[in-house]
This record gives sequence, structure tokens and C-alpha cells, in this order.
Amino acid sequence: MSSHLVFKNCSSQFRAAVSSRGRAQVWQQAIFLSRGAGYTSARQFASPSVKVNSQRLWDSIHHTAQWGDSHDGGVKRLTLTDDDQKVRSWFAETLTAVGCKVKVDQVGNMFAVRPGANMALPPIAMGSHLDTQPAGGRFDGILGVLGGIEVMKVLHENDVVTQAPIAVVNWTNEEGARFNSGMLGSSVWGGMIDMDEAYSIQDVEGTTFQAALKRIGYLGNEGASYKTNPLAAHFELHIEQGPVLEDKNKTLGVVNGVQAMGWTYITVHGHSQHCGTTPMDRRNDALLAATRMIPQINAMAREVQGMSTVGVFKSEPSSPGTVPGKVRFSVDLEHIDNDTRDLMVKRTKEICAEFAEQEGCQATFEDTWASRGVRFNPLCIETVTEVAEELVGKDGYETLPAGAGHDSVNTSHHCPTSMIFIPSKGGVSHHPSEWSTQEHW
Amino acid sequence: MSSHLVFKNCSSQFRAAVSSRGRAQVWQQAIFLSRGAGYTSARQFASPSVKVNSQRLWDSIHHTAQWGDSHDGGVKRLTLTDDDQKVRSWFAETLTAVGCKVKVDQVGNMFAVRPGANMALPPIAMGSHLDTQPAGGRFDGILGVLGGIEVMKVLHENDVVTQAPIAVVNWTNEEGARFNSGMLGSSVWGGMIDMDEAYSIQDVEGTTFQAALKRIGYLGNEGASYKTNPLAAHFELHIEQGPVLEDKNKTLGVVNGVQAMGWTYITVHGHSQHCGTTPMDRRNDALLAATRMIPQINAMAREVQGMSTVGVFKSEPSSPGTVPGKVRFSVDLEHIDNDTRDLMVKRTKEICAEFAEQEGCQATFEDTWASRGVRFNPLCIETVTEVAEELVGKDGYETLPAGAGHDSVNTSHHCPTSMIFIPSKGGVSHHPSEWSTQEHW
Repeated sequence: MSSHLVFKNCSSQFRAAVSSRGRAQVWQQAIFLSRGAGYTSARQFASPSVKVNSQRLWDSIHHTAQWGDSHDGGVKRLTLTDDDQKVRSWFAETLTAVGCKVKVDQVGNMFAVRPGANMALPPIAMGSHLDTQPAGGRFDGILGVLGGIEVMKVLHENDVVTQAPIAVVNWTNEEGARFNSGMLGSSVWGGMIDMDEAYSIQDVEGTTFQAALKRIGYLGNEGASYKTNPLAAHFELHIEQGPVLEDKNKTLGVVNGVQAMGWTYITVHGHSQHCGTTPMDRRNDALLAATRMIPQINAMAREVQGMSTVGVFKSEPSSPGTVPGKVRFSVDLEHIDNDTRDLMVKRTKEICAEFAEQEGCQATFEDTWASRGVRFNPLCIETVTEVAEELVGKDGYETLPAGAGHDSVNTSHHCPTSMIFIPSKGGVSHHPSEWSTQEHW
Repeated sequence: MSSHLVFKNCSSQFRAAVSSRGRAQVWQQAIFLSRGAGYTSARQFASPSVKVNSQRLWDSIHHTAQWGDSHDGGVKRLTLTDDDQKVRSWFAETLTAVGCKVKVDQVGNMFAVRPGANMALPPIAMGSHLDTQPAGGRFDGILGVLGGIEVMKVLHENDVVTQAPIAVVNWTNEEGARFNSGMLGSSVWGGMIDMDEAYSIQDVEGTTFQAALKRIGYLGNEGASYKTNPLAAHFELHIEQGPVLEDKNKTLGVVNGVQAMGWTYITVHGHSQHCGTTPMDRRNDALLAATRMIPQINAMAREVQGMSTVGVFKSEPSSPGTVPGKVRFSVDLEHIDNDTRDLMVKRTKEICAEFAEQEGCQATFEDTWASRGVRFNPLCIETVTEVAEELVGKDGYETLPAGAGHDSVNTSHHCPTSMIFIPSKGGVSHHPSEWSTQEHW
């Protein structure tokens, strides 16, 4: 491991857990200190004799898909529903059976902790979520939790004792599909959202988040905060939800961060005019102005290796014989670098103002949502990279940023974090056809 | 009048009415043959001593606006409603009082005929419509009918006897706002739509056109056909509904035809993709493809002095975080020349296919509606031009095509037709703020 890696973003607990020498192998030794089998490095730990049981993991995915089975290959398991309650019970029972102690915090986050040699250290966590989108698949989120459970089973079977405790975490309401605030459980834990604010969020039927937690018996006692319930590190295994790995024929993705992303809505104000009687040079055509802006925004985003998407586009009065007087559209802008994304937002507004003026219109702007980008912890990335190289070789993995929000974004502010991706068939997610192969698992 | 004018589109009746010599002055003499005042040409007839009463016309506009008054300056008088019945009664009474005989045909078209010296000739008509859009103004259509009534009053007061009979026509359901088929009454009269088909058209409440005619007592006995109830000519005074005359500071528009127009719907088929995880070069972005097409279609239309308008634009799934998988939009294409419009439709489809391919999408097309362009009768245009020049001088009028459909399009296939425009304030129509000045009247 190169010596330029710095620990300045690491919590003191993690620094202790990974040793004061700051070298990956030492850290891996510390974590995977084995009494039963004598493994002294991650490299050895990843050797053929101790590895996850692919078939068992595959079976457990399909076993748990019964709770919320949408009978089209997918899963509909909205957070804190009866189906979520059932998979949560299974989670607790399964991990208790392999020597874990399960804690539930005040927002339903579940921490299944396997003791380590040094119980003064906070646990090193493998976390993700068991809730899904309304028409979701059986992999998004679930893979990260069930992958963690499989690791626990292997540790248990091989009588491995780690230096720090190890935990599997099931974060509540990552999808934000029932309570419309994504990554809600990890956001409260990370201090991004106040607990009372989270409690008051209602689903479409008016049930509050707090009432829903209480109803299924998951309003826990553990403080929902990184301060009172810290983690030494957080690793998240997840499907890519994009086509890059599949396209490049890679088996693993080493995730180096999450892109900065956000939405700007642009309203173009023109005049509704009769299309047959208003000459072309006498128009204030809001739609024409908008359609001139959008390809330019796209080109600008490509220039800086960023991403732009116009997903919503509404036109008024929406009559085939009338020049549209008003158009409103969304622009999603993403970049791995926060400053570059800020610049993209600025350029987008300049482009819109320019074309609006050319077409005799005005453009107004609303920045409705933004999520700052995150660079994951260099030491965690390096560790994942080393193991990936061992498992699939130098050409078998790709280092890439995540393009979607994950609980790891929230943990990354409070403990060293990184993620691991496996390929998504056709890049599809949030859909019953979402799929990943057993081999990649 | 130049000798190249031909009569091949004129009915035999009109040829008789305008004399066999085919010169405008002679025709005007024929029409306006005056017994009481001795006028021998339209030029003389337009002299200061016999002219319309501007104030009376102005007053009658505001008087009739009581039937459907929308209390915001506009009129809501959908066809065959109680308000329409009231204005129709007023029309019949007013014209009967000045010596006309009122006929109602099988689709409610009203023909108020003032006898001429030669009753073997079909009447020369001034026609338009008394129905309005749901949020319409007090000028569109109404001006043409009330202008005709004012002419009848002047002829009556001055005891003028014309060679051919003169008629004022109120065409039924021009707007197509209640029964969704515009210019319906004149279309049945012109043989463009079968009467039974017209009768079966329903409004949103399921009332048929036939039942609505019967309810207000306007299912007449006169055959609704140019064959049994012919006109020798049709002139229509109308507001411009556009800004050209106002912009150029003209008082009158001599309308030389109606543009060819029609709608093509384009559907762009791409793939819905997660915007954060799908790289820019891996997308099949239907919306980006569409927004690249639209400015190109616009440029192409301008190149050939035509018009293009995208009025409807729908995108799916319409989520700010999802690359749109499907976009459907309308393109209205207009040109004074039918062949050039056909070419515009062809080029539009080529442009769309090209950009769809570039963005990894497919484009499909539906031509949902088209109306062939019409060149009005040269003799009628010439007559209107001569009178316009007399009234407002060489710089006071502009010759231009109409950009919207009118009953005159239908009459033009069966009798010599032309239209006269007056300026619309701000080019606005189909809106309560629609306005034209008393001076222009």
C-alpha cells in the first residue's frame, strides 16, 4: 500500500482498529486475526479453503424473496410493512444462530454484532438494506445484507475470531419509496436528519414513520446515532445498477465514491400563440427555446465528463395548434467532483438564459435537491482493491464511482467507508427484471 | 383586371352572375346594380354617401355579446346551446326586418336571403359563424355575420337592388368546440362530411349533433348541400387572429388563400434508464433525441417559408432521475403550397429518423390530420383588392394567406370565395382579450 494514504478522515476508533502503522496488510491482520485457522492477512483469508458458500447465498436470496414476492421475478417489500417485518425476523434469527447479538435502534436500523477479540473497538460493518422499490428486484440492497450474513456464517463455521467486532447492518427505508426520504435510517444515524423530523414523515395513507416502526415492533431502544452506536468502518456490497461492468466484462467494481448529484428545474416563459396565424419570427415559443437548451446542456456535461439528464418535461397548454407559452423541465446534473458539479449548474443556467433570450422568452430556475459527492476512504478502497485483485485478477475489476445514493454515503461522514459492486444484467435496477448471476455473487 | 384570370373554378351560376366578359368592374356593376341611387360600380358604391354605420355595427357586436357573456370581455357561446339559440333568433328577426327571407338547412346553417333583380341567380353570400370557443372573444366569426347584417341594413335603407340576391350566412359549429369537428356546417354543405356522420357526432355529455339541433329548433328543412342550395360567391370578413396587420400598421388584409396544414405525431422509442448509473454514451435517451429533432424541423420549415409548431410534448416515465424511454410530440406543419407542405412532412420524418438513429432510438409517425391548402378565387381577390385600395389606399392593406381554417375553405370548392381580414389586437384570438377597434370595423 502506498504511503500517501492518509487517515485524516478516519475516526479514532478505526485508527485503533487498523493499527497505528497504517498499512493495509496490518489492518487486515488486525481484522481477520484468526485463532482457528491462523489466517494472517486478507490475502490468505481469501484463499480457497475459507470462502463464502455461493450456493447458500444464492438460495437465501431466493428464500427471502418470498416476503414481498411480486410473482414476476421481482420483490415489492416497502419498508415497515408486514413483509418487511418477516424478513427482519428472519434476519435476527439467522444471525443470532451464528453467534451475533442483534440491536435495533430508534429508527429500526438493525445491527447484528459478532464479538471480536477487542470489544472496546466499535464493530466493522457490512451494511445495506432489505426494503425495495414498489416494483423492485431481488438484489438491490438485499445482496449487501445477505452477503454480510453469508460472511458471518463462514466466520462462525471456521471459528474465526476478529480483532474488532464485526456487524451486519440492515438500514431502514433506504429506498424512500414508502416514506419519501431516501436513506432515512442511515441519515438519522449519521445526523443528517433529526429523529423527530424523520418520525413525522407520513406515507400516502398518512401513517407516520414512527407509528409504522411501532406497529411492526421495530421502534428500538438503541440510540440512532453514530455518536452512541459508532462503527469502525462500513463496507457495502451492491449491484452496480448500471451497465459499465457488464459492458467491460468485469466481475467486480471497486467503488471510489458517490457522485455529486442534484436537480434543477427550469421554467421557460413565452407566450401561447395561434400556430397558424403567428409568423415564425413573431413567436415566443417556450418549447422551441427549451429544445434548443437541452442538447447544449448535454454537450456541456459531456465536455466535463459529467452527466446530465432531462427526465421531466411539461409543456402548456399542450395543444397541437398552439405555440407553447410555458415549459418546465428537470435537469439532473452529476459529477464525481463537487466543484465541477457546481460549475455545471451555473453553466446550465447560463445556457438556458441565453437560448431563452434568443427566442424572446425568460427562464427561471429552482434547485430542488442536491446531494454532495463523497470520496470514499482511500484505505478502504485500497483494501477492496487488493482483495479484488486476488479474487478476479488485475483485469477482472474496474474502479468507478457510484451514480446513485447509498447508505454508505451517510456512513462515510463518520467512519471509513467503501463499496463493492457486482454487474447488473443489462444495467437494470428498480425493476422486477433486475438480475445478477450466481457467479458474480 | 389582368386577362390571365380564369374562371375554371367558378360555378356556372357565378359565371352568369358576374357576366360573360369576366372583368371585375362589370361584375361589380352586375352585383351592385342600383335602382334607387344609380351606382354602377363598386368604386362608386363605396363612396362616402352610402356606407356602413360603424357605430351601429359596434353596438350590435356588444349587444349580441350578452348571449354567452363570460363577464371578462369575452363570450362563451358553444354551438346549439340556449345562448346560441337566442343569438340565432335575433339574427333571423333582424334580417327579416330588413327584407330578407331566412332559410335553415338540415344542419342548422342559416341563410338570410335578400332578393335580387334576377332571382334565377344563386345568392352572393357574406358568411361566417356566431358560435365561439369555450373561452372565446366577441369578434371571431361574429364580425363576419354582423358585418353582413350591417350591409343588409344599408342596402335596405338606400333601397339598393342588386342583380343577384344577396345572403348573410351563419354557418353551424365552425369552432368545433362542442362537437369536435371544426367547420361542420359548411363541411356538410360542401359535401366534405356526410350528413349522417355529422348527425352522430357527440358532445362530451353524449348529446348528438342531431339531437342538439332538434332541441333548439334548428333542424331545418332546406337541403344541406351546395347542390340544392347553391351560392354564387362567398365573402367572409374575419379578424386576422395573428399579428401581421397590426405589426405592419395595415387596416385591411386581402386574403388570397388558406394555408395547407396538418399534424404529424412523432413517437421516439428509447430505453428508460437510471440516470446516475447509465453512462452518457450508453443511453437510448428518447427525450434528448426529440430535443435534437425539434430545432432542426423548425429550421427546415423556415427555409421553405413555411411554419412548424410543436405544441404537444409528452415524456415517459417523467421522473427527474430516469432517462426518458418514450417521447411523443406533435408537429403542426403549414405552407401556402400543398406540394411544399408534403415535402415538409417528408423532411420532418427524415430529420426524426436521423436523430433517433444517432441516439440509439427509433422514431414512428402518425399523420393524424391534414387540410389541403386553398387559393381563393382570383376575381374575388381582385374585387376585394380594388375596394380595399379605394377605402384605405395602396399602403393601407396587405395581401396574405389565412393561417387558420374557415368556412370559406369549404365554400371555395363550390363557389368563388375570398376573405377580408381586419387587425387583431396583439394577434390574440380564442381568448376573452381578443379585440379589434371600431375604426377597423
